[in-house]
Amino acid sequence: MASEPAPISFARGAPSLDIIDVEGLRAAADAAFAADPAGTFSYGTSIGYRPLRAWIAEKHGVAPENVIVTNGSMQADAFLFEALVEPDDVVVVERPTYDRTLLSLRSRGGDLRPVALQPDGVDVTGIEALIADGVKPRLAHLIPNFQNPAGYTLSLEKRKALVELAKANGFLIFEDDPYVELRFTGETLPTMLSLASDDQVVYASSFSKTVCPGIRVGYLVGPEKLIARIAKLATNTYISPNMVAQSIVNEFCRNGSYARSIETVKVALKERAEALGEALAAQLPEARFVAPEGGYFLWVEMPDGFDADALFKAAAERGVAIVKGTDFLIEGGENAFRLAYSGVGVEQIREGVARLADAAKSLPVG
Amino acid sequence: MASEPAPISFARGAPSLDIIDVEGLRAAADAAFAADPAGTFSYGTSIGYRPLRAWIAEKHGVAPENVIVTNGSMQADAFLFEALVEPDDVVVVERPTYDRTLLSLRSRGGDLRPVALQPDGVDVTGIEALIADGVKPRLAHLIPNFQNPAGYTLSLEKRKALVELAKANGFLIFEDDPYVELRFTGETLPTMLSLASDDQVVYASSFSKTVCPGIRVGYLVGPEKLIARIAKLATNTYISPNMVAQSIVNEFCRNGSYARSIETVKVALKERAEALGEALAAQLPEARFVAPEGGYFLWVEMPDGFDADALFKAAAERGVAIVKGTDFLIEGGENAFRLAYSGVGVEQIREGVARLADAAKSLPVG
Repeated sequence: MASEPAPISFARGAPSLDIIDVEGLRAAADAAFAADPAGTFSYGTSIGYRPLRAWIAEKHGVAPENVIVTNGSMQADAFLFEALVEPDDVVVVERPTYDRTLLSLRSRGGDLRPVALQPDGVDVTGIEALIADGVKPRLAHLIPNFQNPAGYTLSLEKRKALVELAKANGFLIFEDDPYVELRFTGETLPTMLSLASDDQVVYASSFSKTVCPGIRVGYLVGPEKLIARIAKLATNTYISPNMVAQSIVNEFCRNGSYARSIETVKVALKERAEALGEALAAQLPEARFVAPEGGYFLWVEMPDGFDADALFKAAAERGVAIVKGTDFLIEGGENAFRLAYSGVGVEQIREGVARLADAAKSLPVG
Repeated sequence: MASEPAPISFARGAPSLDIIDVEGLRAAADAAFAADPAGTFSYGTSIGYRPLRAWIAEKHGVAPENVIVTNGSMQADAFLFEALVEPDDVVVVERPTYDRTLLSLRSRGGDLRPVALQPDGVDVTGIEALIADGVKPRLAHLIPNFQNPAGYTLSLEKRKALVELAKANGFLIFEDDPYVELRFTGETLPTMLSLASDDQVVYASSFSKTVCPGIRVGYLVGPEKLIARIAKLATNTYISPNMVAQSIVNEFCRNGSYARSIETVKVALKERAEALGEALAAQLPEARFVAPEGGYFLWVEMPDGFDADALFKAAAERGVAIVKGTDFLIEGGENAFRLAYSGVGVEQIREGVARLADAAKSLPVG
């Protein structure tokens, strides 16, 4: 019997354990539990652990009242959508975008309007065209840095244009930014939150990619009234988020482990992204992609008529997991797929792409 | 200027820090992080940290597939109500009951039917009378041990009768049991979950009262299909609950700290409950109450016409916080209030009751 090849997953947007600072987390827990047992172990309030909230507020140059710290940023999204999105409210989304956001918005009955994502970010003229047609967006959900699934980054010019557009047309930008710290090439761009003069932006981020996913700590920054409304929803849902986890993250951020951890992660991601790009160019030359400047993901488009669903199956037979492009779009994406390089080492990447190329060769010619 | 009296809170159902095993939690975190960094720090799945899920399943004599571990038991309640309660579904609740449960069920549009709580638990004939009137309950929410707010405990006879009634009439019992481990007098009674032969019971509990509230770990035990449905809701809400917190709880439970912590808590609660009962008998003799056999709460009924709202204000002026009875009822409770003795030491209890008696004397005669 031939032995099964070891599984290689390009599917999950998660870090491998070797780039998580396990020792730093042990030390942070120990220090946090000793320094503030009352704050760590008692019920908190729904806005989160106050010292961490203050750290986040300072980082973004806002008041603590503009911040709520939640059990991961997906929970933050859920509260935000509960507060803002009523059935038939128009929500602009990127095409493609994160599948769970689509699911969450759809379950609220939102009227989703996908607008094409370009290598420099969402097509602003596409949003303008919708508005010119009389559509009145309530919210625009945008992932500005190293977008999931495409890996693309929104340009400074477009960030400015979007803030102006939101102001002129009275909609809110939901700047969903979990990957911002993971830039390994080029210059960090200002957030739309920092570019907006008024209350046009609500911003979300997370410590899943910079500390670890299992810690489930995310946050929202936004207008004080909206944050207060979400805090009320959060109280009614869970009284308070995880104080133990937030206290550990607070210590980790303040004692310097956070900055060190980000460096470790970026070095590894850069290496992995480069290895993936090189392997694809060498072994799957028909694959088109934009080399990401940060983050976890690379989006591959194959020639028209290519069947990514068949590739998904042929790859699975070879022990390789990918995510089909169609998962990230309401329609289309049949010739595309997403590769996550965050959870796989360089050797696995090379081996995985070799198997993927073999899988592609096995497909009937379209 | 007279100095303000130190505040004394009988309001919050939370443990004081001196009965939380801070050192045990530090040791558990350290051991858990070293033993299973991958399981602790990575994304998990929505059913929770598997070793803890297995420990809970064994404790209740069920399969792991019957268990989901959540971010606190209020979050579990929210998922359960989302899965089960549609607008106008009839839900039997105890009168009085936990205010947040009322709020949560109301926000789902549930048709709440309060049934009187007696010192030996909910009035089963009251539920029978509803059914005889043609009402078809979907769910009955019951807090069997040391009920919040009343401190009463459901008798074995009534537990058996309720399981039979649920079976005969096709409704589900939601056995909400966060205080079960905190019995300091008398014998532990079997859960309705263990008495039911079929799928009539979904059971919730929590580690907030036995480990600490800030850890936010709770769980549901129920029919496999229902648990699977809730796991899907949980995935869409937050991908996975807090793995770090659940891994710490798992270690704490398995290394013996849990059993020791419960002993510490019970000794303190017994002392506090007795001190409260004695102080009330001595200083507020018109107060009627049933001495609790466990848990956090004591429910005080004053003579008819007594104005607990006025007492609430007069007590606050004296630095004493209580919760008004009306908070736990859809109507009624004007002459009642809840005292939580979990967060206050014996000396504070004596001083707090003295101030409360002084506040009561200050009220105009009704």
